[in-house]
Amino acid sequence: MPTIVVEVMPKAELLDPQGKAIAGALARTGRGDFQVRQGKRFELSVEGQVTDELLAQVREIADDVLSNSVIEDVVNVRVLETAPEA
Amino acid sequence: MPTIVVEVMPKAELLDPQGKAIAGALARTGRGDFQVRQGKRFELSVEGQVTDELLAQVREIADDVLSNSVIEDVVNVRVLETAPEA
Repeated sequence: MPTIVVEVMPKAELLDPQGKAIAGALARTGRGDFQVRQGKRFELSVEGQVTDELLAQVREIADDVLSNSVIEDVVNVRVLETAPEA
Repeated sequence: MPTIVVEVMPKAELLDPQGKAIAGALARTGRGDFQVRQGKRFELSVEGQVTDELLAQVREIADDVLSNSVIEDVVNVRVLETAPEA
């Protein structure tokens, strides 16, 4: 069953308090000085083949349902290479 | 500034109520019949070069801080190809 991955991140120009909290925790615990942003990753699995229409449909879902276009960007929609089935 | 992407998903054998809710919403609104799982995507940006030590450090952070190993798996740690700077 093919799986399509949709990645959503907060827009670059917006504050990301979750990411800031993680960066602060990493610095306080001596794990290094990183800038961190937290977004979402969705896996959509579907029966059948991945066609261009299916990908277009998933892109529409990513824009309309999985992300809030006011504050988030869909940064990636890609087909997951599946491990060979035993 | 190089960016490393960490992807975290709920373990396959566990229920994912958020994903189930999204799948239900897609089906009810006539957007298709998908299985959906929702996870997290982190971007860690750091000054300097991406070395093997840095990647090992980020993998440790992914396991210890960014994911809860009881219920989640780190599915991917990768360096983001950055757009060429103007």
